[in-house]
Amino acid sequence: MGIVLAAGQGKRMKSKLYKVLHPVVGKPMVEHVVDTLQHIEVTKTLVIVGFGAEAVKGHLGDRVEYALQEQQLGTGHAVLQAKEALGEEEGMTVVICGDTPLISEATLMSTIELHELSGASATILTAKLDEPHGYGRIIRGEDGRVARIVEQKDCSSEEAAVQEINTGTYIFDNRKLFKALASVTNNNTQNEYYLTDVIGIMTGGGEIVQGYCMEDSEESIGVNDRVALAEAERLFKARINREHMLNGVTIVDPSNTYIEKDVTIGMDTVLLPGTILRGRTVIGEQCTIGPQTEIIDSTVRDEVTIKQSVLQEAYVDNEASVGPFAYLRPGANIGKQVKIGDFVEIKNATLGEGSKVSHLSYVGDAVVGTNVNIGCGAITVNYDGFNKSLTEIGDDAFVGSNVNLIAPVKIGKGAYVVAGSTITHSVDDGDLAIARERQSNKPGYADKIRARAKAKKENKQNKV
Amino acid sequence: MGIVLAAGQGKRMKSKLYKVLHPVVGKPMVEHVVDTLQHIEVTKTLVIVGFGAEAVKGHLGDRVEYALQEQQLGTGHAVLQAKEALGEEEGMTVVICGDTPLISEATLMSTIELHELSGASATILTAKLDEPHGYGRIIRGEDGRVARIVEQKDCSSEEAAVQEINTGTYIFDNRKLFKALASVTNNNTQNEYYLTDVIGIMTGGGEIVQGYCMEDSEESIGVNDRVALAEAERLFKARINREHMLNGVTIVDPSNTYIEKDVTIGMDTVLLPGTILRGRTVIGEQCTIGPQTEIIDSTVRDEVTIKQSVLQEAYVDNEASVGPFAYLRPGANIGKQVKIGDFVEIKNATLGEGSKVSHLSYVGDAVVGTNVNIGCGAITVNYDGFNKSLTEIGDDAFVGSNVNLIAPVKIGKGAYVVAGSTITHSVDDGDLAIARERQSNKPGYADKIRARAKAKKENKQNKV
Amino acid sequence: MGIVLAAGQGKRMKSKLYKVLHPVVGKPMVEHVVDTLQHIEVTKTLVIVGFGAEAVKGHLGDRVEYALQEQQLGTGHAVLQAKEALGEEEGMTVVICGDTPLISEATLMSTIELHELSGASATILTAKLDEPHGYGRIIRGEDGRVARIVEQKDCSSEEAAVQEINTGTYIFDNRKLFKALASVTNNNTQNEYYLTDVIGIMTGGGEIVQGYCMEDSEESIGVNDRVALAEAERLFKARINREHMLNGVTIVDPSNTYIEKDVTIGMDTVLLPGTILRGRTVIGEQCTIGPQTEIIDSTVRDEVTIKQSVLQEAYVDNEASVGPFAYLRPGANIGKQVKIGDFVEIKNATLGEGSKVSHLSYVGDAVVGTNVNIGCGAITVNYDGFNKSLTEIGDDAFVGSNVNLIAPVKIGKGAYVVAGSTITHSVDDGDLAIARERQSNKPGYADKIRARAKAKKENKQNKV
Repeated sequence: MGIVLAAGQGKRMKSKLYKVLHPVVGKPMVEHVVDTLQHIEVTKTLVIVGFGAEAVKGHLGDRVEYALQEQQLGTGHAVLQAKEALGEEEGMTVVICGDTPLISEATLMSTIELHELSGASATILTAKLDEPHGYGRIIRGEDGRVARIVEQKDCSSEEAAVQEINTGTYIFDNRKLFKALASVTNNNTQNEYYLTDVIGIMTGGGEIVQGYCMEDSEESIGVNDRVALAEAERLFKARINREHMLNGVTIVDPSNTYIEKDVTIGMDTVLLPGTILRGRTVIGEQCTIGPQTEIIDSTVRDEVTIKQSVLQEAYVDNEASVGPFAYLRPGANIGKQVKIGDFVEIKNATLGEGSKVSHLSYVGDAVVGTNVNIGCGAITVNYDGFNKSLTEIGDDAFVGSNVNLIAPVKIGKGAYVVAGSTITHSVDDGDLAIARERQSNKPGYADKIRARAKAKKENKQNKV
Repeated sequence: MGIVLAAGQGKRMKSKLYKVLHPVVGKPMVEHVVDTLQHIEVTKTLVIVGFGAEAVKGHLGDRVEYALQEQQLGTGHAVLQAKEALGEEEGMTVVICGDTPLISEATLMSTIELHELSGASATILTAKLDEPHGYGRIIRGEDGRVARIVEQKDCSSEEAAVQEINTGTYIFDNRKLFKALASVTNNNTQNEYYLTDVIGIMTGGGEIVQGYCMEDSEESIGVNDRVALAEAERLFKARINREHMLNGVTIVDPSNTYIEKDVTIGMDTVLLPGTILRGRTVIGEQCTIGPQTEIIDSTVRDEVTIKQSVLQEAYVDNEASVGPFAYLRPGANIGKQVKIGDFVEIKNATLGEGSKVSHLSYVGDAVVGTNVNIGCGAITVNYDGFNKSLTEIGDDAFVGSNVNLIAPVKIGKGAYVVAGSTITHSVDDGDLAIARERQSNKPGYADKIRARAKAKKENKQNKV
Repeated sequence: MGIVLAAGQGKRMKSKLYKVLHPVVGKPMVEHVVDTLQHIEVTKTLVIVGFGAEAVKGHLGDRVEYALQEQQLGTGHAVLQAKEALGEEEGMTVVICGDTPLISEATLMSTIELHELSGASATILTAKLDEPHGYGRIIRGEDGRVARIVEQKDCSSEEAAVQEINTGTYIFDNRKLFKALASVTNNNTQNEYYLTDVIGIMTGGGEIVQGYCMEDSEESIGVNDRVALAEAERLFKARINREHMLNGVTIVDPSNTYIEKDVTIGMDTVLLPGTILRGRTVIGEQCTIGPQTEIIDSTVRDEVTIKQSVLQEAYVDNEASVGPFAYLRPGANIGKQVKIGDFVEIKNATLGEGSKVSHLSYVGDAVVGTNVNIGCGAITVNYDGFNKSLTEIGDDAFVGSNVNLIAPVKIGKGAYVVAGSTITHSVDDGDLAIARERQSNKPGYADKIRARAKAKKENKQNKV
């Protein structure tokens, strides 16, 4: 079983958003904690909610069960709210805070292993800090077991020198936990019920309490303000980046590359500085992504190049190239070896193999065939103020520069639309369409027009 | 009183720009120092100028008074130049270098407090460094007071081990300062008059000299080359970012977020990596800014989203969204819930509530009503080579794709301009305007044109 | 002579690319090592290749000679492959690994100096590490010479505490190297021939073996996985940035600025965060580059401003300004005081002094004179699907908004092309060209068209 403490308000966050809902690498902190518990397969996860209970429930949904802590009377009181749901269960319970998103599966598993092997009633997850000031110190007996936890204010100078601290995560024998909790009182200056008192009650009762010291103390970070939030983000980011690097992804500057947890990336892909990969993004092998590129919930196949661009819910097939300065919006479906160039937006449009949209174009609500060339400044006019309509362009068609294709409209295979045309009717396969006025040159008129403009300017200035 | 030493050349900066004028977080170093002095309300600030005197005066203007140090004969000689202006004053004088921009108000206040409480004649601001090599060491007596300052070259091995160093900032009893200065000589290898000799003169005369050791030694950084300049920038940036985070702003990566000192940001706003906020920028609450966004001297209200964009002297009202890849220039006035999309430039133009400029447009010198839709590629043609003219667009109007609006021109309320039109005359409310040629399709001509182009290509190649 | 060990596979890189070919600051690691050897003027450089031999040869070409190590039987065996080429030579040989790209010229020179002055047979380049675990320890005798190297697994606790480690780089007396190598056996658990055994053989034979400890241990980094690759990149980047800063370049955030080794930058140029300078780029004095700008193989003269842009093989003359959001492609030749604005692409085009392309334009395959104004959305239509053709625009010409210039075409000096025109024929000096339909307004039609569109929408919705 797992109990997640997520009822505190988090005043130091100075936020309208409930503390444990603040995201780290794109996910609310409490969700990372729940993910971790569920990865280690706790049988049941109970989240203690209080402030912002509905918001937390809205996020986590029915992945977990909930208990409400109506008043914030301390961590012991918080865990006590789980009594109705879990108090009668046999087995082991993980108690963990909703604001410690970095505690890893591996660390929890090692803690549990020690707990089980040593037959402990409680095992505290601890960390060794260079600067332990302010944390509860773990005082171990000669047998190596935890004798007690001493809070900062109660530390002797010898105890204050102890670097091992309580991280606030515990493994308990469930029945013994609730039994001990029943004895916890609020006879202290804060009038709170402390979960740490359970440890004293257990050791006083002769129970075995162990401490497992995490290998990397950075996992212990608890987020109470946005400085810590940024630090948690940095550490989580580094962890994710490290894993991708060990898997064969080149990250030129890991400190300037932002990858959310669920992203996958193939071998020999290179991420340049300023790359941001979010959501359920999948990147294939041997791609070059970035610099300064954001990709959200998109799929990119192999050997794709994406530079200085933004992609959201897009699909990019093998050997395509995108950018610099392209924007692929939801439903952009970029075929093999397609070139999407600069200042190009694609939305809800399929581009067939080998087609090119090189610059300054918008292709929206369109089905474009293979080897089509869409000229500079060409636009699919898909919106009349009320309706979005479809543009279809056949294979090998050529659409000239600054052309408007007024949808719904169909350009046939191999058709040719000359530059500057506004196309309102469909064009058959192999036909040429033109819709522009002939040019007329007016000798010497440039000077006249210029003189007129100049006079106007001077006139204005005189008035001023 | 405050004396700012700002006369040195700064050869190691290798710059045509005078040293103390090199900016840190957007402001010349010396200006930060003057800001700090004025925040602690010194009665009079005297800046000792020498190299680049006029440039420094040009920057600081009449916020301060100046004394000229014509020859660079040492720090003692520099302070001596203040004698005419300050020598007869009673009270306390802060002496500080113009290249130590990180020394904070709080630190100066604490130094002054110690100075006053201890009745000292001089109080040295000191710092404890892990690697003190090269700095003057603070040697304290048994009473905790400063006995003397020993320069690196004169250090015994015991003295060399002292980690407390002189930061070059002092509080002096003003009269005693100038009295002691009169005794300083240049009998040393550099033939310079050292301000530090004042300390020896004072202690020799039985005066009390105190040392206040700053809490965070990073404040002591003095900028002598651009490596130190970058380090000062990093530290100052971190300080600013930390303050915003503690105030309730989420900064996803503080190391990659650049906020100048005078920027204000509301609670629950999120800054994504690569965000740069400069000048007098004001950001409201619950905005999302970035990634890779630069905002200069602009006002952004609440719940605004700005992505991958550049804003300068722009105003963006509540719930508007901007970008990715938008450029708002001076005078852009973006109304509530307006959408400014990708590859859009707005300059000196007002957009009313709910209007949309979704892509590839330029709106300049315009007044646009509410709920207007400006189509893809539509352009306000505001410039004839001499004059900038105004475009007015009424509420609910619809401007089609690739339309040119030749200013001065007025599009009425609810008017409709069809795609591909060049509009030279005004359009009344509710009217439709069209200015484009009808389409004609030429059967089979696509192949002909293609064959001709192909032949031309082959012809060229044959010639090669 | 120099021997570069570059035959290993690099399994932990998890890559199809051969290990030493992975780039650091834009160049394969092995190329940095070869650069360094050739800068210190070794007479002959022999690269030992194995895995990926052909790929390595393809990269390094005939700058160096090669020896093939067909089987990977250890570092001693690798060096032995040089016997045929170098075994009979007199003199000094540097042995260095192809995956240690940070070892500097200065460090090698100092090692060689010690080697020569001390009459050593071998001199080991060593480093002092805070965490030496895993490395071979350098055990020195009372005379300060190297007594032996002890591998981690063989370390006594006393030896394990030694912080000085073997970096794998050596200077050898060449003849003595090959003589000792002949005695190296593979009697060890790995059945490999270790180069380190040479040291034992030499000291056993009474030869002098020296150790030179590098000043900055970061130079010793060897790249075996992509985490180390990123670390090497970070260190190399910092080294390059530091050098530019000491030379008078302001780098606002060195951790977020990426400069390849061969780039040159003039004094008082400012690089803003997110700037990437690659290849043979040359930047002049007093420029402002960035933020978020990538410049590849380009030349930028003095007092140029480039913001949020991408340049590749471009030339930008004095006092020009580029961006934000501009893309200069190969052959872009930007004249003095030219303004290239936002959403503008320039390719293979010359722009004369003072010309302006302010927004949303594409100028490709063009020769543009001085003081030309190219309006918003204007496009050179240089491609007919087969041929690229030239556009010529004379001095002082004015090209209106959304104009298409269908190449080949020539716009005369001072000519004026009105907005919205598609120009198919040349325009003489001083002439005005127009090619657009007259506007007609249809009273009340906006409502009709809107009603029709609305009905269509409702009709669709009813069907759903």
